[in-house]
Amino acid sequence: MKSSGFRELDVMVGKARDASREAAQWSGDFKKKLLLDVSRRILSQKKYLLRENEKEVHRARAAGLAPAMVDRLALNEKRLIAMAEGVRMVAGLKDPVGHILAAWTRPNGLRLKKVAVPLGVIFIIYESRPNVTVECASLCLKSSNAVILRGGREAMSSNRAFVKIFHASLRKFGAPVSAVNLVRTVDYAAVDHLLAQEGKIDLVIPRGGEKLIRRVVERSRIPVVKHYQGICHVYIDRKADLAKAVPITLNAKLQRPGVCNAMETLLLHRVIAEKFLRKAGPLLREGNCEIRGDAATCRILPYAVRAKASDYGHEFLDRVLAVKVVENLGEALDHIERYGSRHTDAIVTEDRRVADVFKARVDSSSVMVNASTRFSDGFEYGFGAEIGISTDKVHARGPMGLEGLTSYKYIVEGKGQIRT
Amino acid sequence: MKSSGFRELDVMVGKARDASREAAQWSGDFKKKLLLDVSRRILSQKKYLLRENEKEVHRARAAGLAPAMVDRLALNEKRLIAMAEGVRMVAGLKDPVGHILAAWTRPNGLRLKKVAVPLGVIFIIYESRPNVTVECASLCLKSSNAVILRGGREAMSSNRAFVKIFHASLRKFGAPVSAVNLVRTVDYAAVDHLLAQEGKIDLVIPRGGEKLIRRVVERSRIPVVKHYQGICHVYIDRKADLAKAVPITLNAKLQRPGVCNAMETLLLHRVIAEKFLRKAGPLLREGNCEIRGDAATCRILPYAVRAKASDYGHEFLDRVLAVKVVENLGEALDHIERYGSRHTDAIVTEDRRVADVFKARVDSSSVMVNASTRFSDGFEYGFGAEIGISTDKVHARGPMGLEGLTSYKYIVEGKGQIRT
Repeated sequence: MKSSGFRELDVMVGKARDASREAAQWSGDFKKKLLLDVSRRILSQKKYLLRENEKEVHRARAAGLAPAMVDRLALNEKRLIAMAEGVRMVAGLKDPVGHILAAWTRPNGLRLKKVAVPLGVIFIIYESRPNVTVECASLCLKSSNAVILRGGREAMSSNRAFVKIFHASLRKFGAPVSAVNLVRTVDYAAVDHLLAQEGKIDLVIPRGGEKLIRRVVERSRIPVVKHYQGICHVYIDRKADLAKAVPITLNAKLQRPGVCNAMETLLLHRVIAEKFLRKAGPLLREGNCEIRGDAATCRILPYAVRAKASDYGHEFLDRVLAVKVVENLGEALDHIERYGSRHTDAIVTEDRRVADVFKARVDSSSVMVNASTRFSDGFEYGFGAEIGISTDKVHARGPMGLEGLTSYKYIVEGKGQIRT
Repeated sequence: MKSSGFRELDVMVGKARDASREAAQWSGDFKKKLLLDVSRRILSQKKYLLRENEKEVHRARAAGLAPAMVDRLALNEKRLIAMAEGVRMVAGLKDPVGHILAAWTRPNGLRLKKVAVPLGVIFIIYESRPNVTVECASLCLKSSNAVILRGGREAMSSNRAFVKIFHASLRKFGAPVSAVNLVRTVDYAAVDHLLAQEGKIDLVIPRGGEKLIRRVVERSRIPVVKHYQGICHVYIDRKADLAKAVPITLNAKLQRPGVCNAMETLLLHRVIAEKFLRKAGPLLREGNCEIRGDAATCRILPYAVRAKASDYGHEFLDRVLAVKVVENLGEALDHIERYGSRHTDAIVTEDRRVADVFKARVDSSSVMVNASTRFSDGFEYGFGAEIGISTDKVHARGPMGLEGLTSYKYIVEGKGQIRT
């Protein structure tokens, strides 16, 4: 990449910082109006947006992009309406900044307040889904942050068109258009350059495959919020109610196998294994789910194939399930500790003491009792939005809503106090 | 470093992880007892600790270490007593883990709880003060974390001796000694190897000079909590009460010039500049403080030297103060935005509206009104402890107490709910 390209990026970051200073002063009312305008504009500019997208889909097909990828890229009227509705919902969420998180007075009379503030400038790196552009820009504006978006190369025209919509709304209300920025080059050197802008960019959120995320973490000097994998487990305890265990198993595996909160490994207490598998096995099979089991599982289910060691802790993201029969709760906990990704793990049991041990011992961002792992999601938790899911333990952990896009500051008010 | 050294480190990290699993289950009561035992042991093992330290101080002097560095290394009975007292205080703090941060029920009947949990394994890299060993180990144990300590090479013997004390107490209560670990090599390759242990170490805290911290950030794939610099400003507004402004200025600059929350630059509203400097100038001079001022400052104070551009935004950590006369609040805010480090900035004013603008606009972890910047500190804020100060905006911002050593998890309890 030419140094003139870096200069352009530096100018963009500088303007984004200036915009973030202004955004930090936006009222909740202003942000609501702004986003409602964006939502309306997506609908009124439908033709333009679809036309830009169509050209791009055409190019992608001509270039031989895989059909699944083309599908992720392609928009239609229904998808656009859903996007506009998504922005309208974000507009209506509670303002996440400005409120007082805590307030107290010290013996020396100093009055302290801990106040929610925006993060500043957020850099989001993602792949070729243009709806991510709209979702992320809305959430960042709602939380008074400026955003730098770097989407996939295939979606560049669509992303430009959506950013234009945001700019039109920002301009209408006299707000700086640099609150929403799009990296207009597909050169990876640009991403690396931005990942070194420590102190100018406050947070990086990579959304995409593990390879993309590892690359970002390796090169970033800016804090990164991410999750690599969702290796979610469901453990069916000996005291499980099968009327709960079977539907939870099917739902966790098959309702949407390609997402991070789908189950990848099923652990069965040996006492209940046979009874459970006789019920659940045929239903999994009906759902076209391949079962990769240990010796005990394969003895019970003739159509199960023998699992390799590498099937445990593997993220299939598909209709494939690893199954293991365990001696007891301890073995299940050890397995989750060893193979899990600290995302979401569930137990099915009617034994409250066993559930308590599981809740205390499993070190994952979400621990479920008698519920499907698929509930691990910002919307399902009632956050009204989700910018991502973090498997790190610092900052936001688990499903991350608007609150994850905020920080806080301490405001200390005195009457001339000095330290002695 | 030989690969056998890396293997040793890997074993250490593995054991620390195991210990952290166990530590996560410790009760508040247990941790209190454990730390009180450590505190008592520091006093009863006084002779041993001083002897180990003395040998080391001797070696350091012989090797020609700077007297200031030797002083940071050297212990005496008084310092040991203060350390034991510090541990006793940490023992008495409120348990930061296990409590419910939020609880709610979803329309589908799922009951959610957000529960405070320890981070897991914390890696702390610091320089040659052995009291940091004791402080950090105590805070990590109190928050149910395992810790890996990497102190300075000069303090290796003292650090070993203190870690022995912790091990004796852990052993006495049947807890794993691997909850407290010391890196026993000074080879920097060991630090780099540990900084790559993503997923095994949960947080890195570098404590020391900017160079040390930058090196850690550059190489770490693990989240880092840090602050590079404290470029703290005090702005004296035109409506300042000089009876507050003068003592705050002296206190912020001179009470302890070498620390990160000391003032480095003083900004003066032009209307009050002369009156203020006639009072404060001689007192700063009496305190042996060199004043580096702009043209306006130098016209008022003949003994001020003319500031270079590089004096603004410089962390002197010494009896040197940069001074600038500004037109108005806006210029002060712009100066702080441009030159500050987002650590702590203060305003002195009786004008509430001006104070409100300052509080809203200054993007620093602590914003002070009519109080000295020196109050920006975990103890002064009432946290009972301080593991560090963060100038990042993610995770803990500003002074970081025990809460900064925790994360949370979501516990979701259902009655067999599945997602539709």
